[in-house]
Amino acid sequence: MIDHPSQTLASFAANLRFDDIPEPVIRRAEDLFLDWFGSTLAGKGGRPVETIDWFAQQMGPATGASEVLISRRQTTPLFAAMVNAASSHFAEQDDVHNGSVFHPGAVVFPAVLAVAQSLGSSGRDLLTAAVAGYEVGIRVGEFLGRSHYKIFHTTGTAGTVASAAAVGRLLELTPEQLLNAFGSAGTQAAGLWEFLRDAADSKQLHTAKAAADGLMSAYLAGQGFTGARRILEGAQGMAAGMSSDADPAKLTDRLGERWALAETSFKYHASCRHTHPAADALLQVISVHDLVPEQIARVTAYVHQGAIDVLGPVLKPQTVHQAKFSMGTVLGLIAQFHCAGMKEFDAYYNDARIAAFRDKVQMALDTEVDRAYPARWIGKVTVETVDGRMLHGRVEEPKGDPGNTLTRAELEQKALRLAHFSGAATAAEMHAVFEQIWQVAKINKIERFLA
Amino acid sequence: MIDHPSQTLASFAANLRFDDIPEPVIRRAEDLFLDWFGSTLAGKGGRPVETIDWFAQQMGPATGASEVLISRRQTTPLFAAMVNAASSHFAEQDDVHNGSVFHPGAVVFPAVLAVAQSLGSSGRDLLTAAVAGYEVGIRVGEFLGRSHYKIFHTTGTAGTVASAAAVGRLLELTPEQLLNAFGSAGTQAAGLWEFLRDAADSKQLHTAKAAADGLMSAYLAGQGFTGARRILEGAQGMAAGMSSDADPAKLTDRLGERWALAETSFKYHASCRHTHPAADALLQVISVHDLVPEQIARVTAYVHQGAIDVLGPVLKPQTVHQAKFSMGTVLGLIAQFHCAGMKEFDAYYNDARIAAFRDKVQMALDTEVDRAYPARWIGKVTVETVDGRMLHGRVEEPKGDPGNTLTRAELEQKALRLAHFSGAATAAEMHAVFEQIWQVAKINKIERFLA
Repeated sequence: MIDHPSQTLASFAANLRFDDIPEPVIRRAEDLFLDWFGSTLAGKGGRPVETIDWFAQQMGPATGASEVLISRRQTTPLFAAMVNAASSHFAEQDDVHNGSVFHPGAVVFPAVLAVAQSLGSSGRDLLTAAVAGYEVGIRVGEFLGRSHYKIFHTTGTAGTVASAAAVGRLLELTPEQLLNAFGSAGTQAAGLWEFLRDAADSKQLHTAKAAADGLMSAYLAGQGFTGARRILEGAQGMAAGMSSDADPAKLTDRLGERWALAETSFKYHASCRHTHPAADALLQVISVHDLVPEQIARVTAYVHQGAIDVLGPVLKPQTVHQAKFSMGTVLGLIAQFHCAGMKEFDAYYNDARIAAFRDKVQMALDTEVDRAYPARWIGKVTVETVDGRMLHGRVEEPKGDPGNTLTRAELEQKALRLAHFSGAATAAEMHAVFEQIWQVAKINKIERFLA
Repeated sequence: MIDHPSQTLASFAANLRFDDIPEPVIRRAEDLFLDWFGSTLAGKGGRPVETIDWFAQQMGPATGASEVLISRRQTTPLFAAMVNAASSHFAEQDDVHNGSVFHPGAVVFPAVLAVAQSLGSSGRDLLTAAVAGYEVGIRVGEFLGRSHYKIFHTTGTAGTVASAAAVGRLLELTPEQLLNAFGSAGTQAAGLWEFLRDAADSKQLHTAKAAADGLMSAYLAGQGFTGARRILEGAQGMAAGMSSDADPAKLTDRLGERWALAETSFKYHASCRHTHPAADALLQVISVHDLVPEQIARVTAYVHQGAIDVLGPVLKPQTVHQAKFSMGTVLGLIAQFHCAGMKEFDAYYNDARIAAFRDKVQMALDTEVDRAYPARWIGKVTVETVDGRMLHGRVEEPKGDPGNTLTRAELEQKALRLAHFSGAATAAEMHAVFEQIWQVAKINKIERFLA
């Protein structure tokens, strides 16, 4: 059998051992697990999430070892993965890998947790499977390239393969079986951006189905169900159908040396990632010069072209969700509260003070910032004060990026805020969760996290 | 709200009434229902089918009103639709619409039957929903065009929307809700031909998932879950991502006047459709001249280019499945048994007499046949006998096409053979099924067909 990129990638994931993974990567995987857990709780009460949970209750069993985090009911892994994945992508607080523009946590952890609970896997197995899912999914996203992302939601497409890799690792599939699982996952991979035009609910459906379909692919492969061997790079495979700039070399880029999981960013502000660099730079100016909003006459955010494309059209946001794509609103919340979290958006996105600040903000395309993107997301702002000072702020990486990551204390605070916001768990329950997750590598048998 | 093709199509399906459908179309829908039923039973024991059923048992409930035909167990509509759809496409005996190259029965009826059993719908509602599914799915397949079919398995992609339309009609969704269901279905639509290269199991996965995902889309839409309004024709929709020759006019082609369901063909021989015209023409020569195989020195089948592309590479078939793509084997079975059914393939595809006949067969590209394709599949053969005669056979349409369709007696015989072949039902049980299906429009509450 001649080796080819899909096969190399499948073999890597199937053969990955806990002891092969450097300790900092394991620790980061725990960080991402906690961050995903909080993001999932934040989805409780979200209409699209609750509707998917309703469907899961109609069609799935009311018993099983896998927990639906927002309702605490138990069911089979398929439905727990489906609902938890829908929920974790709702608040837009889940992690993101910049280079692949892929949200790995929202598709990998739902599948991994549901299956680990069903199998009674160890914490080490859970972490190993998660790492396999991240490494595979991020490389598939990079492979599919920018042309893919223009039409397809990479988290839905690459995410299906990521979920299959993670679940396949937990099920201890052979490399050959995992290659078959990739085949079944890739031939189910879907997710189109068209829904954005109508602000429709598909984003949660994409993560729900990516996690569930990848899981199904792995289970089937374990029973001998076969799939295309070259589903990623073949002549009638994913790239052939859904990309015009795919690069197969990306699939096997420094496997076992480069840990793509550790490149994954946490979201700190509860807004579109394109607003984060400027938000951090403004926060810097405000803190250093101890400014209140009334002292500020004008803010210029120096941004990359992508930020102007996405945020430019949002002049007067009509909903909380749209406000997260308004640079003026985000900077207004930062100026007012030093924080742009779920709570601030919900209560104040349309507040008169925030709207007034919004009109003081403008974006300008910046050559240096644009050139660095997407490898680096530099934040640059100029603040003109009412007393005529010109103050400059600059951050090399927005908060949450690997070089400016969140501490465990900050991750805990974020998770506490998210759980409190939706009412999905008490602070005491969350502290118990923190304790479990920071020690997850020592757990012999994964059980429920919210009993 | 400005009208657009997706919306027009959704409105047509949501508003379709039993009394709007001409009686011959209703009768043909019953024919297709029976033909689908037999095809589904034929999948019993098929490894990929049984594996999907295993998954359904792992993840789904063991109770519910919807029956899995191959095992007779009951479960929720999602899993009954999934398994029955996998099963109905296994024996390659299910119906096909020539113009869209789409197998509507395999995705529409599994979803319709499962949901009708769950809701206790009437037979008229079941038939109306099936017609809605056929009319929508065939038009979506035609819309996506030839470029789509080169990479994507239309039965998987268009099939997801077809299932959503059919289930949406059964759930009595409003036009607006059904448009949302289209959005959720289209953004899940998937299925790549890459598996063919490895003779992998994805074909059954494609129908299983199309039926199940379409069903999910309709249920979600009934609860207010929204989807893209222009998932088919929008700038980041299905055609934008997966076709280069899509024609939106096809989506609304003569809605309510042209009944695409009635254009759907039945498969008569258990082989690739490209072999059928020549098989029928040879059968004609053999019958008219009362020939036995030993009297035949050579057969030339005059075919369209597509037949040479697909069948040409199969010189010495190694498996039953491959034999169905061997023109020589098919004509050999016809010459020997006057029939190329499941049983003949299974027992004799590699028989010495059949192999000997195979070497007497050649294909030749024919201008007239090629020009008529794909609208008409003309069958033309020349038979050279050992005593030196040159005999010509010709059929204008292969048996099973709308102009040369199967009688109800022939459909019953086909279904009996399929059920007997797999052992899924006895002749007595099948006769009871025939009675129910020919009277389905009079059933007030759809229940189990195989109690």
